[in-house]
Amino acid sequence: MSEATPMRFDLRPEEIPTAWFNLLPSMVGAGIQPLPPLHPGTKEPVTPDLLAPLFPEALIAQEVATDEWIDVPGEVLDVYRLWRPTPLMRATRLERDLDTPARIYFKYEGVSPAGSHKPNTAVAQAFYNRQAGIRRIATETGAGQWGSALSMACRMFGIECLVYMVRASYDQKPYRRILMEAFGATVHASPSDTTQAGKQVLASDPGSTGSLGIAISEAVEVAATNDDTNYALGSVLNHVLLHQTVIGLEAKRQMELAGERPDVVIGCVGGGSNYAGLAYPFMADRLRGAAPDMRFVAAEPAACPTLTKGRFAYDFGDASGMTPLLPMYTLGHGFVPAPVHAGGLRYHGDAPSLSLLVRHGHMEARAYNQNEVFEAALRFARTQGIVPAPEPAHAIRAAIEEAEAAREAGQERVILFNLCGHGHFDMQAYDDYLNGRLPEVEFDPSEEEAALAELPDAPVPG
Amino acid sequence: MSEATPMRFDLRPEEIPTAWFNLLPSMVGAGIQPLPPLHPGTKEPVTPDLLAPLFPEALIAQEVATDEWIDVPGEVLDVYRLWRPTPLMRATRLERDLDTPARIYFKYEGVSPAGSHKPNTAVAQAFYNRQAGIRRIATETGAGQWGSALSMACRMFGIECLVYMVRASYDQKPYRRILMEAFGATVHASPSDTTQAGKQVLASDPGSTGSLGIAISEAVEVAATNDDTNYALGSVLNHVLLHQTVIGLEAKRQMELAGERPDVVIGCVGGGSNYAGLAYPFMADRLRGAAPDMRFVAAEPAACPTLTKGRFAYDFGDASGMTPLLPMYTLGHGFVPAPVHAGGLRYHGDAPSLSLLVRHGHMEARAYNQNEVFEAALRFARTQGIVPAPEPAHAIRAAIEEAEAAREAGQERVILFNLCGHGHFDMQAYDDYLNGRLPEVEFDPSEEEAALAELPDAPVPG
Repeated sequence: MSEATPMRFDLRPEEIPTAWFNLLPSMVGAGIQPLPPLHPGTKEPVTPDLLAPLFPEALIAQEVATDEWIDVPGEVLDVYRLWRPTPLMRATRLERDLDTPARIYFKYEGVSPAGSHKPNTAVAQAFYNRQAGIRRIATETGAGQWGSALSMACRMFGIECLVYMVRASYDQKPYRRILMEAFGATVHASPSDTTQAGKQVLASDPGSTGSLGIAISEAVEVAATNDDTNYALGSVLNHVLLHQTVIGLEAKRQMELAGERPDVVIGCVGGGSNYAGLAYPFMADRLRGAAPDMRFVAAEPAACPTLTKGRFAYDFGDASGMTPLLPMYTLGHGFVPAPVHAGGLRYHGDAPSLSLLVRHGHMEARAYNQNEVFEAALRFARTQGIVPAPEPAHAIRAAIEEAEAAREAGQERVILFNLCGHGHFDMQAYDDYLNGRLPEVEFDPSEEEAALAELPDAPVPG
Repeated sequence: MSEATPMRFDLRPEEIPTAWFNLLPSMVGAGIQPLPPLHPGTKEPVTPDLLAPLFPEALIAQEVATDEWIDVPGEVLDVYRLWRPTPLMRATRLERDLDTPARIYFKYEGVSPAGSHKPNTAVAQAFYNRQAGIRRIATETGAGQWGSALSMACRMFGIECLVYMVRASYDQKPYRRILMEAFGATVHASPSDTTQAGKQVLASDPGSTGSLGIAISEAVEVAATNDDTNYALGSVLNHVLLHQTVIGLEAKRQMELAGERPDVVIGCVGGGSNYAGLAYPFMADRLRGAAPDMRFVAAEPAACPTLTKGRFAYDFGDASGMTPLLPMYTLGHGFVPAPVHAGGLRYHGDAPSLSLLVRHGHMEARAYNQNEVFEAALRFARTQGIVPAPEPAHAIRAAIEEAEAAREAGQERVILFNLCGHGHFDMQAYDDYLNGRLPEVEFDPSEEEAALAELPDAPVPG
């Protein structure tokens, strides 16, 4: 047997985090005051009662919680235990292939039953809704990761699940639809004729391939107009990011097992939940001054470059202006991205807390085009075996850049990224890449300028 | 936090098995002498030189090894470490749903990068071939699990991979083909026009949907006629089953961690490798008299009922009679099963060692039809979250039967089965099941009688 470099840093089942981590106190401590969401009509800060038709009380409380730690309920832990703690691995084969002195670690969330990190919050949301006596949850899904996670979670807590799936993905990814149906969910392609919001879009554009914003409008409408139905979101909101911190809490302990402290923490960003989940427990160290040099890199698609080319403004979370206005980087709520394969990274906005961290210079953002992302994905698959989903392939691309920079600089560098899902549902994208069929979709800012100019400013606090 | 029943029994990374377990000495000790393979022409026992054009020396030696333990090379361990040790879980949610006093455990091999147990042997085979200076490996694949595992393994050891994929699966499962291509393999639908064997089949049946036997003939032909190319098989042979024993070796330790001894050990059987991998380390206890009451159940599809309706005879491993004759349960090497969704369980024969164990009454076999298998699969997915591949869904079906029998008998019963892969590449099958499109394919023995009658007897030894 060879004297191998340790490659895997496993926690014991009983080391699963029993509380979620709330970054808010650390942000406030660093002088970064959160901005409140605004009422879509009055433009005044929203009160909890506005959210009550959509979310159970417990989640509304988590949305504005100021406690640093929030207990994970036992019934949620029981489900987490089906796949958590997840592995943290060192990518020694990729390192060798890159001939880099950098040490590359990744947290792997693809071992969850749905194949991604999304169940971390889906399970919690289903639990709190069941606890509140809700019979059904309506939601939207882009690539299908969120929809399949919520379908699974709802089934486990005996709740019905209604999913509006962006038409482009519905047609491109039938396997994701079937996965949701296997868990017992009802799936509609969005825009659909089951809601007023969907009908309006179809009336003006019968061939619409949809967007997350439109699908959100449909799901919110169903929840707002049915007493027994709530709404659930798979990213962006504080409580969603909170639930995802189990990723980073585990990763911190695992990096300690490896005897390492990351120099740079990387993740892909659509709405921000997988990256915040990994990054926030580490970010707290930076905000408190314990790790001032730790860098944070958010990777996004060039076709939907919210953080790199968007405006920091108040904007709606959905396409038709039903949700509160959120202070965030946005490309405008009317933005419909090209149907690129990173289906989960096509949201017009980003999580407010993550947007603030970028705005304050605690995180940097980089945008990549499809082909360089899939090149990185294949390089990873062919060295480490795991075929990544297109979304985290953006993080792999950034990790490879960091490792190459370390090589140029002749520098040891500890890189940590979130491999938030496997690509077994995304093989068509690989086929398109391997056969040269992936177009480079560039973002054209001129088309968005008018829409963006109309958005109310989000003042930079702190 | 709730006082939860322990559900997961993890080994530490350093507890990965460092030697494979060979059941042969235990079988011989119990009076079961293996029967030799016979030369296809002379019908005399084969000598190692007959296999030399196809396999490297190390694997030929393992095929006839009499040592009980065979060291896993360090480079193989290094790759195993990318996903091993794999989880052993207790299916408490399924137990509750079944209202059974039985305790159901499963070993989960779906966490491997290819999504199944197949890399356990693919990695070993690629390693020994690289060591022998081989440039390329040719193989066949049915559902695609084996082909994708070997493609990954070949890439890791710098060997080319050429895969003949059964036409029915090639058309039904494009994602599996793409996965192989993502790892850099060349994939042909079989029968193909790249071999004499394929051309012959196409000449008589241009629309042939293929069979594993035909695909084996094609791959063997390429290996036999090219010096730089070897052949690799994903099941049936002794060395393949040997490599899979890492599953059972881990599971034995994990069951000890759980403080349990299985009353019944269950697996699905196509060629026999995943089930042997789990079962053989436990079977040794039965054969040695340490666990005389431990039962072993092999689950197979009613559409390809090799163990339950086949004949114990000498038969070819491939369709066109190029391989040695193997002593096994067989439906005849000309048997072409209906294209049912359990694509990996459609082989006409079964591993000789496993066939002998059935013949001697140490294992029982049960056959299930498609719809009862998918019913069990969905029940598992909706309670445990994991969507199983159609193949191990046969094992789940058998496990549920055992758990229901335990309930009827008011009996505690410890059930262990092998969940050898996830179903993320098999969603079309679930769609067909959910929409009532799965036909019940019954095996008609009358069609096979003539072919089976011509096979030479395999005497029952011992």
